[in-house]
Amino acid sequence: MRSGVQFRLAWWRRRQVERVSAKEVCLVIGAGEGAGAGIARAFAAEGMPVCMTRRARSLDQLKALAEAIRSTGGEAHAFGVDARSEAETIELFATIERDIGPISVVVFNIGANVQFGIRETTTRVFTKVWEMACFAGFLAGREAARVMVPRGKGTIIFTGATASIRGRENLAAFAAAKNGLRAVAQSMARELGPQGVHVAHVICDGAIDGVFTRSRIDDVTPLLDEDLILKPDDIASNYVMLHRQQRSAWTHELDLRPWREKW
Amino acid sequence: MRSGVQFRLAWWRRRQVERVSAKEVCLVIGAGEGAGAGIARAFAAEGMPVCMTRRARSLDQLKALAEAIRSTGGEAHAFGVDARSEAETIELFATIERDIGPISVVVFNIGANVQFGIRETTTRVFTKVWEMACFAGFLAGREAARVMVPRGKGTIIFTGATASIRGRENLAAFAAAKNGLRAVAQSMARELGPQGVHVAHVICDGAIDGVFTRSRIDDVTPLLDEDLILKPDDIASNYVMLHRQQRSAWTHELDLRPWREKW
Amino acid sequence: MRSGVQFRLAWWRRRQVERVSAKEVCLVIGAGEGAGAGIARAFAAEGMPVCMTRRARSLDQLKALAEAIRSTGGEAHAFGVDARSEAETIELFATIERDIGPISVVVFNIGANVQFGIRETTTRVFTKVWEMACFAGFLAGREAARVMVPRGKGTIIFTGATASIRGRENLAAFAAAKNGLRAVAQSMARELGPQGVHVAHVICDGAIDGVFTRSRIDDVTPLLDEDLILKPDDIASNYVMLHRQQRSAWTHELDLRPWREKW
Amino acid sequence: MRSGVQFRLAWWRRRQVERVSAKEVCLVIGAGEGAGAGIARAFAAEGMPVCMTRRARSLDQLKALAEAIRSTGGEAHAFGVDARSEAETIELFATIERDIGPISVVVFNIGANVQFGIRETTTRVFTKVWEMACFAGFLAGREAARVMVPRGKGTIIFTGATASIRGRENLAAFAAAKNGLRAVAQSMARELGPQGVHVAHVICDGAIDGVFTRSRIDDVTPLLDEDLILKPDDIASNYVMLHRQQRSAWTHELDLRPWREKW
Repeated sequence: MRSGVQFRLAWWRRRQVERVSAKEVCLVIGAGEGAGAGIARAFAAEGMPVCMTRRARSLDQLKALAEAIRSTGGEAHAFGVDARSEAETIELFATIERDIGPISVVVFNIGANVQFGIRETTTRVFTKVWEMACFAGFLAGREAARVMVPRGKGTIIFTGATASIRGRENLAAFAAAKNGLRAVAQSMARELGPQGVHVAHVICDGAIDGVFTRSRIDDVTPLLDEDLILKPDDIASNYVMLHRQQRSAWTHELDLRPWREKW
Repeated sequence: MRSGVQFRLAWWRRRQVERVSAKEVCLVIGAGEGAGAGIARAFAAEGMPVCMTRRARSLDQLKALAEAIRSTGGEAHAFGVDARSEAETIELFATIERDIGPISVVVFNIGANVQFGIRETTTRVFTKVWEMACFAGFLAGREAARVMVPRGKGTIIFTGATASIRGRENLAAFAAAKNGLRAVAQSMARELGPQGVHVAHVICDGAIDGVFTRSRIDDVTPLLDEDLILKPDDIASNYVMLHRQQRSAWTHELDLRPWREKW
Repeated sequence: MRSGVQFRLAWWRRRQVERVSAKEVCLVIGAGEGAGAGIARAFAAEGMPVCMTRRARSLDQLKALAEAIRSTGGEAHAFGVDARSEAETIELFATIERDIGPISVVVFNIGANVQFGIRETTTRVFTKVWEMACFAGFLAGREAARVMVPRGKGTIIFTGATASIRGRENLAAFAAAKNGLRAVAQSMARELGPQGVHVAHVICDGAIDGVFTRSRIDDVTPLLDEDLILKPDDIASNYVMLHRQQRSAWTHELDLRPWREKW
Repeated sequence: MRSGVQFRLAWWRRRQVERVSAKEVCLVIGAGEGAGAGIARAFAAEGMPVCMTRRARSLDQLKALAEAIRSTGGEAHAFGVDARSEAETIELFATIERDIGPISVVVFNIGANVQFGIRETTTRVFTKVWEMACFAGFLAGREAARVMVPRGKGTIIFTGATASIRGRENLAAFAAAKNGLRAVAQSMARELGPQGVHVAHVICDGAIDGVFTRSRIDDVTPLLDEDLILKPDDIASNYVMLHRQQRSAWTHELDLRPWREKW
């Protein structure tokens, strides 16, 4: 049995760990709803301050998510940021590092799933999808590398999709962007792994519960009851797991798929 | 409305399930040392009875491993089995199901890393490597499917290697077997996932600490200190994680690689 | 033995074929030197009028190439075009269709092989490489689809590289663009194949003889003598072959690699 | 300037080469019908003596094919061989080299497309499919390497299928064998390419016109008219092309697919 002193020492040590880890920040780029919100909640539940971004016009909803996380005892901060803007992204990283703590996890979670036949794909669509799903990911990854490499540690996770590993009719724009993002992730993993930074790419193969899916399906309840679509919290625990992996055995890529999904 | 008797019956049945699930068994085919031993320890630490196999001539060492697991409070059983034998494999599953409990996790972990130029690869080598690394995996997977599908649940995990996804000079035999095993895993995942059975394939890309690696490297200590080779316990926690994944987000394949490994 | 009449008939029929095929135009986007020039020469040697583009500032060199092709009996036209410009690309297709003939082969052959560590990759570099190697390819492919789909035939070939199928340290920008281009090619193949348009992607895995390679290697002669680098004419014959494939057996992707190249 | 003697020497040497190359033999392992027969016809049409194998019980049909090839001016030889037998395979190569000519092309074309759920896949089926589609391919490839490497030249082509690159429900046995064969091909290509031997793998993605397909489809005529299934002759021209590729630009893998095939 432990004496009171021993117990208090253990408690103090745990507090130290908590204080240190409480300073290590998780940043989720694109945390509006769906997977991003789940990932933010999961890292907050680990005791990490969580910074979340969404474009300015959705900032109110993001603030509500931050408030919800705080109401359960977590620390959460909402930022209205255009992830495609180099200036805003650089400022975001600087602000967090200065005001909140060192960023140790960056999750890039912006998609842009649109479908057009190749002849109907406008240059505007092709470019915008790339800006959101690939270029913004490069920006986030580069800024993450810039703060993490000097410290020799950190975790960078990119959210992928089925379109990350193959093209398909009507998906030229989306698949080009997601394949491109995957190439960024793979290039970064090979370059930064040996420098102590863990870079991972998660392929979500299936519909994710969230606003996008709910706008397309009348009633998701039966799908949720049967686990037929990806649940944000179930996705999220894998992101936390990736961050917790020991460096003797890092995963670069894994897929996530509902049990009854065809593939 | 349910009568009292019905309710008690349901309660009893639920208890049965709980009792049964408390007995849910993990079977590791090829648990001699290295990753296999780590995986067995990890599932035992989760409170699951662990059954381990190794060919008969190494049974003494396997019994020592079982004893070590028991000495830390786990339940472990050692079986001398030729994993290439259909009769022995069928008997193994029957024995465990009858005497120990329902098998809910099967890990197939037998490799056979040999290197020969194509012209020097004998039919004996080519066949034996396939028997050990592919055919035995099919056998284990099939028997696992036979007990798991009727229950609509269970986890089957195959250990892969870099040679699982590509061939290379001097690796025709090993790569053929490992690519074949991966195809078995993928076929089973697509078939059994919708039936509630989670099939995963783990690509270990790098040397694994164990007898094989220690026989080739004079002193692994500096490699271990720097996490430059795969540590069995770090591999193993990913196997447990795969078994714990919620079915809305199952992983079929992930890679594991030391942080400084070139790939 | 054939009578004079029969011979003349055969001659006439052959002429008909030649006249028709002489009207079917091959367009090579990015035909400055290296593979592009070889491909243009090869299609010209097949009797097809060849239209070639290069950015305006290199138009003189392109005109010299066209002249060289014409001096061997081929038909060749040089266009100074910024392949990243939608307006210029649309005008290019319109001009050729109006003045030269129906475009039945489009080859997109622009690369942009630059190497930077992720932290040193500027947004300008990342964007420009994508514009040249991916966006311009989408533009060319889309315009090709617009003229070919209504006719139910045509061939579109994209030139890829090793970076088309994987990322690597210092290659985030290039690999993102080339992976993206490959996804465009794959999406188009799946969409347009059933409409009669053959879309292919050729992975050139190795240095290609040309200005870029010669600027980096002092003397390519021994490499050429031993066939250790990709020769433009040897690449090119595969492009012609792809165009000639019967539609019961179309290839979407193939790799090309010097015999002694490591991979 | 060359003297007359020198010229005649050069002429004589060229004749020698022609004589030798005229004797260069193509061996098709598994040439019963479908792709194999088309490949044999195609190489015979190139002026190469073609040796074909089929198991002994189908030798009469193979002899009829050989006779058909001879009736069109080609040279063809039929051998009843169990391709899974090391002794028979070694004897086959020795016989051809001694009696017919140096083997410069080997095509391995044996498949074994069976479908069973994993639980219904017997060890007999799993083993036999592997013996036919993978082990026999290793044997053929190894024996080809043994005669070709000392000469520093030759072409070895393996016929693959969709199951060569992925597993699927009911395909564990076939996919394991075909993935294994592809790993053999890739290992051999990486090892033998630098020694002058061209190793290629052709993925036939779709039904091939032949006895197997005709036994499953009532009337293939409309499919043939519309080119909706792979035609043996269209497949075959790609094999000849692979053999003719210049070594500065060798293809290791290509896919073949009817234009309207879904993939």
